[in-house]
Amino acid sequence: MEKEELRKLIRVAHGDQKADTVLKNVNVVNVFTDEIYKADIAFSDTWIAGIGSYEGEKVIDGTGKYALPGFIDSHIHIESSYLSPEELGRLLVPHGASTILADPHEIVNVCGIKGLNYMMRAAKNTKLDIKFMLPSCVPATPFEHSGAVIDVSKMEEPIQRENVLGLAEFMNYPGIISASDDSLDKLMVAKKAGKLVDGHAPALSGKDLESYCAARINGDHESTTLKEMQEKLRLGLYALVREGSACHDLRTLAKGINATNERRCLLCSDDRQPKTILELGHIDYLLKMLVEEGVPAIYAIRMATLNAAEAFHLTDRGALAPGYRADVVLVDDLVSFKVRQVYLQGELVAEEGKYLPSFKKEPIDDVLDSIHLKDFSKEKFKMHLTSNHVNVITIQPGGVVTKKEDAYIRIKDGEFVFYPNVDLVKMAVVERHQMTGNVANAILKGYGIKRGAIALSIAHDSHNIIVVGVSDDEMEAAVKALEKQNGGMVLVLDGKVIGSLPLPIAGLMSDQSGEWVAERLSKLHDLAWNKLGISRKVEPIMTLCFMSLAVIPEIKLTDEGLFDVTKFSFIPLEIKDEQK
Amino acid sequence: MEKEELRKLIRVAHGDQKADTVLKNVNVVNVFTDEIYKADIAFSDTWIAGIGSYEGEKVIDGTGKYALPGFIDSHIHIESSYLSPEELGRLLVPHGASTILADPHEIVNVCGIKGLNYMMRAAKNTKLDIKFMLPSCVPATPFEHSGAVIDVSKMEEPIQRENVLGLAEFMNYPGIISASDDSLDKLMVAKKAGKLVDGHAPALSGKDLESYCAARINGDHESTTLKEMQEKLRLGLYALVREGSACHDLRTLAKGINATNERRCLLCSDDRQPKTILELGHIDYLLKMLVEEGVPAIYAIRMATLNAAEAFHLTDRGALAPGYRADVVLVDDLVSFKVRQVYLQGELVAEEGKYLPSFKKEPIDDVLDSIHLKDFSKEKFKMHLTSNHVNVITIQPGGVVTKKEDAYIRIKDGEFVFYPNVDLVKMAVVERHQMTGNVANAILKGYGIKRGAIALSIAHDSHNIIVVGVSDDEMEAAVKALEKQNGGMVLVLDGKVIGSLPLPIAGLMSDQSGEWVAERLSKLHDLAWNKLGISRKVEPIMTLCFMSLAVIPEIKLTDEGLFDVTKFSFIPLEIKDEQK
Repeated sequence: MEKEELRKLIRVAHGDQKADTVLKNVNVVNVFTDEIYKADIAFSDTWIAGIGSYEGEKVIDGTGKYALPGFIDSHIHIESSYLSPEELGRLLVPHGASTILADPHEIVNVCGIKGLNYMMRAAKNTKLDIKFMLPSCVPATPFEHSGAVIDVSKMEEPIQRENVLGLAEFMNYPGIISASDDSLDKLMVAKKAGKLVDGHAPALSGKDLESYCAARINGDHESTTLKEMQEKLRLGLYALVREGSACHDLRTLAKGINATNERRCLLCSDDRQPKTILELGHIDYLLKMLVEEGVPAIYAIRMATLNAAEAFHLTDRGALAPGYRADVVLVDDLVSFKVRQVYLQGELVAEEGKYLPSFKKEPIDDVLDSIHLKDFSKEKFKMHLTSNHVNVITIQPGGVVTKKEDAYIRIKDGEFVFYPNVDLVKMAVVERHQMTGNVANAILKGYGIKRGAIALSIAHDSHNIIVVGVSDDEMEAAVKALEKQNGGMVLVLDGKVIGSLPLPIAGLMSDQSGEWVAERLSKLHDLAWNKLGISRKVEPIMTLCFMSLAVIPEIKLTDEGLFDVTKFSFIPLEIKDEQK
Repeated sequence: MEKEELRKLIRVAHGDQKADTVLKNVNVVNVFTDEIYKADIAFSDTWIAGIGSYEGEKVIDGTGKYALPGFIDSHIHIESSYLSPEELGRLLVPHGASTILADPHEIVNVCGIKGLNYMMRAAKNTKLDIKFMLPSCVPATPFEHSGAVIDVSKMEEPIQRENVLGLAEFMNYPGIISASDDSLDKLMVAKKAGKLVDGHAPALSGKDLESYCAARINGDHESTTLKEMQEKLRLGLYALVREGSACHDLRTLAKGINATNERRCLLCSDDRQPKTILELGHIDYLLKMLVEEGVPAIYAIRMATLNAAEAFHLTDRGALAPGYRADVVLVDDLVSFKVRQVYLQGELVAEEGKYLPSFKKEPIDDVLDSIHLKDFSKEKFKMHLTSNHVNVITIQPGGVVTKKEDAYIRIKDGEFVFYPNVDLVKMAVVERHQMTGNVANAILKGYGIKRGAIALSIAHDSHNIIVVGVSDDEMEAAVKALEKQNGGMVLVLDGKVIGSLPLPIAGLMSDQSGEWVAERLSKLHDLAWNKLGISRKVEPIMTLCFMSLAVIPEIKLTDEGLFDVTKFSFIPLEIKDEQK
């Protein structure tokens, strides 16, 4: 804020000068005192000047509406929306979002700091205030090839940036618990810069959790039980109650939010797909759910505003009071939380679900060319088996966890032969970053595909290409089509592309609208189920995205081979029966 | 924190290495969750490593005791204790204080930034963590000569210092409300440095308060009614509930602290004299009072710990949890809050009321020579009256407010003649900083002095010399004695010093112990009442200290003359009856 801005702000607050805009006669929800009273909210430039009786150059009648501070999503991966930052902003703002804490973990795994830079530049094109956390664990595991390695030396500059609030979820909790040099060095980078460290501690407990917290992790969004949440709260972690497209923890955790601990509870979506946003909403929907679960509206609202602002040291927002950012959400009531208008920094930016400002999109040249294959052909899908007894990755419907099983398969000339009536299919991971030429193959169970192939360039966390198909030819066609469209999703049938969602931004995000992406995705789902015959028990795309994630049990496939997560080591595809 | 310190901390937390110290089996009060449970608290270096079951190199049995985080006094003037920072630390720590937010307003008025520097150096000699707020209003008024003028240019360096958290109470609220350049410039200095601004807004309300808050003042300690406190809370100010030696607001305000707003409430003493500390205590006593008033113990404790840490962005303290400062107060119970042991940064620093560490005291040479008189003699006390009708300053017992009255006095050769049976006496203010030679005289009513004279070098806020006496000779003797002892307090009878409290540090603080100062002060009070015959209705010293404070109604005396606070202008001593 500059001096003349401050002068005007004070003069407007004092009634010596007309406000730029006045929201007349709204029901102001005061998050400091849990009071609701009728008043005018006066804006001066981008700030709230006063709340009382005010005159303005522009006067908007807000009679009957409730005024809330702009909502804060305390943890989200923009990439999981498949949308660019600008486009996600366009979708979230009409639902009352003023601020999101974004962890660009996926794009940084693909493009390194160049990916972060793109995201930060793009963020400037939206009225949504996107604060960033610097990915702390790139690559997420040493068991696959990613597009970048962000070691301490690469963190030192970006952690200093004004809009980078700290390190993103520190998933390498074993590294902290064991006080490994690498983890300590990363923590020190954040500490020296005076920045925060976000947590990620699924099911961590007891002394493991104590030692993780000793590093002064700020919060955690992985609690799935009340007991887990309460233990984390007790040890000083903010509890980020999560409700995303993939993970649904809110209704469970709502029961643990009470008068004493609510100030330590926040809200986050983690992953939020465009379809979910368009159909259900965002934080507005989470508020509705909390109230449905019996959480007092004021607690719910504070979780989305004041508490988050405090947790992330965003001292300029989180409340409706003089000198705070003029981020105001007008809703019908504190039950439906139906958002009518959204003001960000004093400007009407959304009305009746529509984002109002025009905006440019950041050029994507820097992050466009992300599919780098070497010597790729269907030859790479050959398994050269000597045994027909193999380890199998078995999908567990509804989750990202797999089961390690084994099966006898039919082989011909050392190669797996697909039978539509047997639920076993070939899956491959094709390295796409470093041109290693790596392709690893495995047998997948539970996916149910009957025809064609599907290929994706989204494969957590390194985002190599995952391809599943009934023949090497179909699989090759899918990968080649994916390469041609700069990544995304491709469905092939009889050697031809029958559906695709190009994700040219790092192979992760679309340059198109949220509505378009949502529609395309629905179409792909239909094609996957109806044309390829993929099991209706699985979400055909998201399920595959997690088949490389070598930190989630029990067995995964990376570009380096089949990985047994329980043993934390690679295992062969074949089981040599004679060795038993 | 350095890397190896962090490594050890994590290892200790994880149980891989013994803690340095373990407080065994204490009742841990968890300020995050409002739970109390039996556990061990493990220290690693200066940090809490874990709370659970731990082994340590040193093990202390804490059975039956309640463990609380170190207490934070959110606003205090060290100078008002008449003690050096080291000595105040020695007195406060045994009462559980870990941190105080000090506003060195008085010494900076006398010595400028040199005074701040002395305070900050001295602060290093005590285990009490003294954080400073940079005085924002020096001089407090333009109606008197102070020892320094701290304009914006002088603020730019000190506001950057690590232990300076922001600007101290911004008393010039008219300056903010009117958006004066001087005030805006000061606010901008703090904003640009990313520092806080403390408030001081007695009885401010409505649009005045809105505009003051628009400047994003952090908190305020001047509320005296529930209505005032609630209005301030509503507008985003932290409510610093005050209970000092002079001002007693806690019992009144306690009634307004509830489940919703408690997180925005803090505790402060503002002014705390050694006698009060020695006899009643400090924050421990305030906690006891709050609980007596029906405030739940957890709210009271949070006001003294977590809430204050949050308000001042002291992210390393305010709770008992892994990675937090090892500041632990062991008390008998949550009713008496009787403090038994105090650990600061993992070290036992106080036990059974006794401060344990040995300490050096900062040399006071820089702030010693603070009484600078020019051409001073009793001639300066001459009034050269032409009328026997004069304006009179009438003391209002129990407060710092005075009443403007007038009186007919006896004069001889143009000079006031004192009569013991008439409660009117001469008061003078002698400029002591800039060698202006200024001496201003007035007539005081309600003080009741019968014999001798009393002189002080404490006179808010510029701290010139205030002297009251029955004759010019006695007054001269008192001032000269005061000059000789480098300031403080002097009582003279028949031309001889009968009692004194030297305050060589800027004429404001003693270099002696708290016990010695408390005893001396009691003795001075006795002498003042018994030997000089000062009215028992007034506190003979503190009353005089406020007779120069030209911002408190109705009439005061500065070195520049008699000041009518209601008119905000100087007025003549004499009233010329013939002009009526």
